[in-house]
Amino acid sequence: MSKIYFDHSATTPVDKRVLEEMLPFFEDKFGNPSSVHNFGQAALEGVDQARASLAQFLNCQPEEVIFTSGATEANNLVLKGVAKALQPEPDKKVGSGDCMDITKEDVKKTKDKKGSWKGWLGKDRKESSLHVITSSVEHKSVLEPLAEMEKQGVEITYLPVNSQGLVNPEDLKNAIKDNTVLVSLMYVNSEIGSKQPVREAGKIIKKINESRYSEWQKKGARKQEPKPQPVYFHIDATQAVNFFTCDIEYLHADFLSLSGHKIYGPKGVGALFIRQDSKIKGIQEGGGQEKKLRSGTLNTPGIVGLGRAIDLITPKKQKEHSGRISALRDRLVEGIKKNIEDVVLITDREQSSPAHAHMLFKGVEGESLLISLDLEGIAVSTGSACASRDLHSSYVLKAMGVGAEEANNAVRFTLGKHNTEDEIDKLLEKLPPIVARIRKMNPLYKK
Amino acid sequence: MSKIYFDHSATTPVDKRVLEEMLPFFEDKFGNPSSVHNFGQAALEGVDQARASLAQFLNCQPEEVIFTSGATEANNLVLKGVAKALQPEPDKKVGSGDCMDITKEDVKKTKDKKGSWKGWLGKDRKESSLHVITSSVEHKSVLEPLAEMEKQGVEITYLPVNSQGLVNPEDLKNAIKDNTVLVSLMYVNSEIGSKQPVREAGKIIKKINESRYSEWQKKGARKQEPKPQPVYFHIDATQAVNFFTCDIEYLHADFLSLSGHKIYGPKGVGALFIRQDSKIKGIQEGGGQEKKLRSGTLNTPGIVGLGRAIDLITPKKQKEHSGRISALRDRLVEGIKKNIEDVVLITDREQSSPAHAHMLFKGVEGESLLISLDLEGIAVSTGSACASRDLHSSYVLKAMGVGAEEANNAVRFTLGKHNTEDEIDKLLEKLPPIVARIRKMNPLYKK
Repeated sequence: MSKIYFDHSATTPVDKRVLEEMLPFFEDKFGNPSSVHNFGQAALEGVDQARASLAQFLNCQPEEVIFTSGATEANNLVLKGVAKALQPEPDKKVGSGDCMDITKEDVKKTKDKKGSWKGWLGKDRKESSLHVITSSVEHKSVLEPLAEMEKQGVEITYLPVNSQGLVNPEDLKNAIKDNTVLVSLMYVNSEIGSKQPVREAGKIIKKINESRYSEWQKKGARKQEPKPQPVYFHIDATQAVNFFTCDIEYLHADFLSLSGHKIYGPKGVGALFIRQDSKIKGIQEGGGQEKKLRSGTLNTPGIVGLGRAIDLITPKKQKEHSGRISALRDRLVEGIKKNIEDVVLITDREQSSPAHAHMLFKGVEGESLLISLDLEGIAVSTGSACASRDLHSSYVLKAMGVGAEEANNAVRFTLGKHNTEDEIDKLLEKLPPIVARIRKMNPLYKK
Repeated sequence: MSKIYFDHSATTPVDKRVLEEMLPFFEDKFGNPSSVHNFGQAALEGVDQARASLAQFLNCQPEEVIFTSGATEANNLVLKGVAKALQPEPDKKVGSGDCMDITKEDVKKTKDKKGSWKGWLGKDRKESSLHVITSSVEHKSVLEPLAEMEKQGVEITYLPVNSQGLVNPEDLKNAIKDNTVLVSLMYVNSEIGSKQPVREAGKIIKKINESRYSEWQKKGARKQEPKPQPVYFHIDATQAVNFFTCDIEYLHADFLSLSGHKIYGPKGVGALFIRQDSKIKGIQEGGGQEKKLRSGTLNTPGIVGLGRAIDLITPKKQKEHSGRISALRDRLVEGIKKNIEDVVLITDREQSSPAHAHMLFKGVEGESLLISLDLEGIAVSTGSACASRDLHSSYVLKAMGVGAEEANNAVRFTLGKHNTEDEIDKLLEKLPPIVARIRKMNPLYKK
């Protein structure tokens, strides 16, 4: 029985051409790219070429690309690294520093300066802090670092989403405050596939930064006040790379993270675009590889693989790929709707990744459906892979207003470039009797 | 011209058998190990098997092994993760918390309780802090995170080393204080190859922990005082795995880090042994893979490769490998000493890795020698690879009492399992005229 894979949001197989490119770097060009000798240089050439590929894809300079162990590390790095760079240095000895010295007078003074950045950059660490904006449906690799940062005193705003899982750009605009330093949004949601209005968000942030800067030019510059700190914009593009432009100028992004294994590249490698002159500090210290922003011997074969995977994604390929996969998804969605009653498509096809179909099967535990399909050799999921052993129902669906009970009826189909019409038809053949059988066993389900 | 590689401390080629084991996990068993379906399970099997291999090698439980992106991450995780777990939670809002509430009375009280752990676990964050002990010759992936932690108020003691780069266990014993929570030592020094007395260190720490515990049983337990926090022992075994036992019971280690690419496994993967019930928190947050201590999709092919690389290192193989490489090193060292004047062997052959020969060539810039040998197709290094683009002279040699000028004469030869006598002889043939030529150009060198 040949197996069918409809879980491409969890991970993708490595493309043959990618693996081929990687192979020489295991045994032959195995040197450490930091080594000065020939073996090191051969490895470094591979890394440099990959960096150039990433830069071309992102429309940035090669120096603005940092390789990491994956998108999780890239997300941790940007969130914590920006906070680390912008937060005042802690006192060398806890408790002995300036937090004891602030008088009520000081606090009052700072509060009085409406809109002043001095509030958090300067002396007063009591009343003000860094502020980060994100959405309530981000990936755990954004939400969990932010939760840690919140414990350290960083203020976080979680923007709500509508029933399609989308943030309202107007909400973002209203949420930006004087102490906002970073906005972090996911390009395409890994669970339901909705495509956030990241470009609109980028435009809003850019406009605010420009107006603050011109205000400073008019007033602050003369008084020798420091330049205003811009609000940075981070896009987690992990699920978007296969289909949508990641041109950082078009998106007005200051940071953008992506991962190898979601784009037919290898696991264990990712990248972070860091706009030149952005204030950010590394969070994994050591030998200082990757411009002192990320230490650890470079994973040459992985990086070379990521570079090749990116090379295979041209705007033309993205378009072809989108068209083909979108047609397959329509076939799947229409087929299911036609043959099975009481099914809700969560993914809004107009505003989502073409690969996603996230559906609720009334009266059916998603987990049971997953296991039944797996027995037939068809792989689907109930949500994101990293949370799939987690029995709590989806926080993404909850944020979209889906009730806890319905959320348990969720099944995610995510298509990939190797999927065929025959595979969709096989699913459409197997699915109805399975759903019927599960519903039959559920006394609470009434037709 | 066939190239010769004498830089195995920087990195090693991937063993054919390792690569063979990895290959199916790129294209075929490509699933996300966190996925519930068959594709995920097949990947998870590979990960489980690798974990079992590591556990067997380390003489621990599979659950005590965490996979990381390399030794740098593993070292960052143990150092920062232990501090994070043991440090009091910061106030939710900086400055609003208990650091304002401590009275002089409180401080005095805490100070009076000699030997009490309450000093740093409890209310007083003014006079006490966590204390970590390390040596002055550790790898940057230990020293740099510790420097960051120092800024956060953690107290660090750097043990001195003797002229062979070795720590005196007596110094360690004397350095342990009431607030010491962690000792971190490198098993084998990556630069000069010296083998630290890690087992002796482990014994000392164990004895101190036992005596504290028995004292608590006699007195503290009755008063319902909390159990004393043990001093944890971390070994960075990255350079030791090929040759020396990493049995964590024998070494009395609580944490042990290692890396794939130093042991004929792939780059981009490492592991950390974490003794059960140790207090440690993760530092890279996200999906919560790896027991919530390390998030990020598991790098299945890398992990499988690391597991296979470890399988190839049995105690028997270690012995054979050591004997063979040690003989090659002797041939190299004796040959150089015989044919070239004014050469000092830094590595103490009795107390070091058999693969290392770190030598000073008087009147010769190590960098010039490296480049000249590279032109002949022979790869050596002047120090550790991650620092090799760094023009500062070696902090390791400095700590050993080698002057800055002499330190620039350093060249490191590190041998591997594929090296042959012929390769050594080729080096011995090429080296003397190169050294003579460089010395001739150096007006300060007088025979």
